[in-house]
Amino acid sequence: MMINWNNMDTLTSFQELAETKQVDLAQVMAGENGAKRVKSYSVPMAEGLVYNYAAKQVDDTILAGLAKLAEEAQLADKFEALYNGEVINTGEKRLVLHHMTRGQLGEAVVADGVDKRGFYVGVQQKVAEFAAKVHNGEITNAAGEKFTTVVQIGIGGSDLGPRAIYLALENWAKKQGTFKMEAKFISNVDPDDAAAVLGSIDVAHSLFILVSKSGTTLETLTNESFVKDALKNAGLDASRHMVAVTSETSPLAKSDDYLAAFFMDDYIGGRYSSSSAVGGAVLSLAFGSEVFAQFLEGAAEEDKLAKNKDVWKNPAMLDALIGVYERNVLGYLCTAVLPYSQALSRFPAHLQQLDMESNGKSVNRFGEPVDYQTGPVIFGEPGTNGQHSFYQLLHQGTSVVPLQFIGFKNSQIGTDVVIQDSTSQQKLCANVAAQIIAFACGKSDENRNKNFEGGRPSSIIIGDQLNPRTLGALLSHFENKVMFQGFVWNVNSFDQEGVQLGKVLAKRVLAHETDGALKVFSDLLNI
Amino acid sequence: MMINWNNMDTLTSFQELAETKQVDLAQVMAGENGAKRVKSYSVPMAEGLVYNYAAKQVDDTILAGLAKLAEEAQLADKFEALYNGEVINTGEKRLVLHHMTRGQLGEAVVADGVDKRGFYVGVQQKVAEFAAKVHNGEITNAAGEKFTTVVQIGIGGSDLGPRAIYLALENWAKKQGTFKMEAKFISNVDPDDAAAVLGSIDVAHSLFILVSKSGTTLETLTNESFVKDALKNAGLDASRHMVAVTSETSPLAKSDDYLAAFFMDDYIGGRYSSSSAVGGAVLSLAFGSEVFAQFLEGAAEEDKLAKNKDVWKNPAMLDALIGVYERNVLGYLCTAVLPYSQALSRFPAHLQQLDMESNGKSVNRFGEPVDYQTGPVIFGEPGTNGQHSFYQLLHQGTSVVPLQFIGFKNSQIGTDVVIQDSTSQQKLCANVAAQIIAFACGKSDENRNKNFEGGRPSSIIIGDQLNPRTLGALLSHFENKVMFQGFVWNVNSFDQEGVQLGKVLAKRVLAHETDGALKVFSDLLNI
Repeated sequence: MMINWNNMDTLTSFQELAETKQVDLAQVMAGENGAKRVKSYSVPMAEGLVYNYAAKQVDDTILAGLAKLAEEAQLADKFEALYNGEVINTGEKRLVLHHMTRGQLGEAVVADGVDKRGFYVGVQQKVAEFAAKVHNGEITNAAGEKFTTVVQIGIGGSDLGPRAIYLALENWAKKQGTFKMEAKFISNVDPDDAAAVLGSIDVAHSLFILVSKSGTTLETLTNESFVKDALKNAGLDASRHMVAVTSETSPLAKSDDYLAAFFMDDYIGGRYSSSSAVGGAVLSLAFGSEVFAQFLEGAAEEDKLAKNKDVWKNPAMLDALIGVYERNVLGYLCTAVLPYSQALSRFPAHLQQLDMESNGKSVNRFGEPVDYQTGPVIFGEPGTNGQHSFYQLLHQGTSVVPLQFIGFKNSQIGTDVVIQDSTSQQKLCANVAAQIIAFACGKSDENRNKNFEGGRPSSIIIGDQLNPRTLGALLSHFENKVMFQGFVWNVNSFDQEGVQLGKVLAKRVLAHETDGALKVFSDLLNI
Repeated sequence: MMINWNNMDTLTSFQELAETKQVDLAQVMAGENGAKRVKSYSVPMAEGLVYNYAAKQVDDTILAGLAKLAEEAQLADKFEALYNGEVINTGEKRLVLHHMTRGQLGEAVVADGVDKRGFYVGVQQKVAEFAAKVHNGEITNAAGEKFTTVVQIGIGGSDLGPRAIYLALENWAKKQGTFKMEAKFISNVDPDDAAAVLGSIDVAHSLFILVSKSGTTLETLTNESFVKDALKNAGLDASRHMVAVTSETSPLAKSDDYLAAFFMDDYIGGRYSSSSAVGGAVLSLAFGSEVFAQFLEGAAEEDKLAKNKDVWKNPAMLDALIGVYERNVLGYLCTAVLPYSQALSRFPAHLQQLDMESNGKSVNRFGEPVDYQTGPVIFGEPGTNGQHSFYQLLHQGTSVVPLQFIGFKNSQIGTDVVIQDSTSQQKLCANVAAQIIAFACGKSDENRNKNFEGGRPSSIIIGDQLNPRTLGALLSHFENKVMFQGFVWNVNSFDQEGVQLGKVLAKRVLAHETDGALKVFSDLLNI
């Protein structure tokens, strides 16, 4: 199949979509028709999850148009090209292989002279063996005592994803008895970040993971030095307390400063690296490698669904298409991610990076400016907390913000309390159900201050419980959604040139090689 | 002075502004002109802070227009009416008195038969005395042992502000030797939230603060029961471990279930309650009441600046006006809050509630729909972390997002490390300076993928150090900014009717009194 990389606005199906009659969401969600939509506008995901888009501002006609768009934009073919090893990251001239950390969706891919699936599995095994030795006391500190804490030093994709996943599974692992070590994270170059974490742990029993693909990330190397100073001040040998996650060609790869080095490669971008050794090392140490393996299996199952050419059996593709419709036809800028699960407290921050860093672009794959809107602004906090905060604007503000709810039927820990005839978990679930309808249908009131216009679209992913498998499936869903949207917008979702200029200018400030406004700001900040 | 509550689009000064020639930010920030702007577009705040708006998309003509708008919209007069005790919260027919928790800006205000300044000071004294007794061991658990941990049970404004402030001052207090007790927070009705917090503390030595103005917030009462069960299961007398922050008329006020009750009233909305007993109890227990008093003093000093009728000496008013210009003339929907301080990690989440819940309205004070955009979407994360995450979209995305930076010359803990000839703190400050210029000026590149258009506006608040006084000033600045914007938009910033419908529908779900789409969603979620 010949692949055409065309801008979205050149596609006939998009032009047709833009002219298709729009849906009155409050109207279609009312009464029995609404009930029918909830039952039918639903796609199974992996691990028992379901993606329900009944409360999105679509109908059968628009959905048919989106299916045509998927076909004309060759979304399935482009994904196939990606997992079969084509150079999809054209800016950096790289393959895009994060799916391969959790399975092989198509042909074997050989790069750098090795089979890449074999490479990723090999690293996972090496991590698993290392973690087992730490857990069983074969690898200890110099005094022969077990490590109790693992500290990830990394920023961006080396921080947000692994941190969100750790928080998502911490209580589950404690309840299941698989919790092995507490994990902490140092990311910011703000010296108070490292100092506060170091002040909160027992460094003598802590193992540090330095994560930097290039081995040159300034924030991370700075924080490594900070940690090494602390170890030295405690009379400890830093090299007995540190491992590295880095590329084989980085200066860290063969250094004696580390107990071990686990390799990543150029085919996995930072924000897609949670299922590589970047997430694997810290999560295997914290929860055991079996838990990390379950997480990978959940992601692998969801990845398989994303291969489906039939959009009605491909939840990530459908979610992506509806998002494009909202961004480019309805003109909505933001999307709020609202998990009704306290354990997912930092999942929106991870998705914020995943989405905004991937598709926050204004040139296409060939470096030509595009004439349409691309990636949305992503933000979010857990429900029900958000209900007592920014939901006011979502319900009654002057701009419509599409919503992505996530909910689970069961809690992770299982302790609960009955107040007013219902458990907390039932209250949590009742609230998310109620919010979907409140946003979609609104409610007329003669007092305009108490009037809800409705017409505010949302989707929900529902699962039985947040656990390693369902979390892996969730992560895969959003990674693939973002990928499909990048294909529709014809942007390269896998580079991030937008972060470079700030780095260059910051170096200039530190070297005192500035003039004009930058010099005055530097003076104001006492640099 | 007669106050006229007019819609923004009826004001001549606004219509003139909309027709004023717009600024090419990249151009005006270049070269010596840019340097001059940074020096002159700057207003002193309290406690040594400075608000710099050089990189905003304004010039002298637009600023003059904004000053006219401030006058025509009677911003200073409206604030004066507010602090002198007029019923500014028209929807709920209430005074708005949060400023009075930290000072008296105008006339004495008597309500409910008491002088309100006296009332708030009295509560602060009561809290201070209680905290001192906990710290010195006069108030202990039943075994006569000191409390070591304080746990706030509250949601929305009873959670986000106090939590953000606690995190902002935790390391400072530890360094200064004023740290008294660790604080934890339980907010979500998700049972895993309470269970995880209870699993992480020693309940026998924990003091719980139940925060609910009405005494009827379902999430909070549910979590109270959860905590009481845990105390009972540990063989403890719950009433020896709990205090309440509530209104004098609530069912909690005179209950024997609490060691003490600290009062709040109807004149302080949840999102404005950090400087009342809602923040005061937990922060006085955590850090000592002297620290909380310093925080109030910083806020009081900044409040005084907000009285200034001269907009050039009123940073909150100026910030508000520039924000209105961005929202209503330039048409930007979002604002990102980007503190270069890890300690401010949850400050954006608090501002998100403060701003979006206050001004996310589409009717004016009289309940009539407005024909213009109101409150923006607020989101943010600390720098430098955000630079490695969503900044890609901010630099190169298709939509412009105005930015609010915050930076401090010095860290809180003071431990640092020199790498490549600079400290971490210098790197942190160099990065924020660099980002302002990168966003404003951009950089041309023949490779369009590496091209930065610039023209992306930001402001920055710069301080010496984040401490109780500067944090109080910061909080006051943003509270007053939001208030002034509400005045310009002619909305009631002090009610939140948009949260009601969801509550009503959730109750219906729990009572199994639903039909249509809501019934099917409830079934899907197993309620």
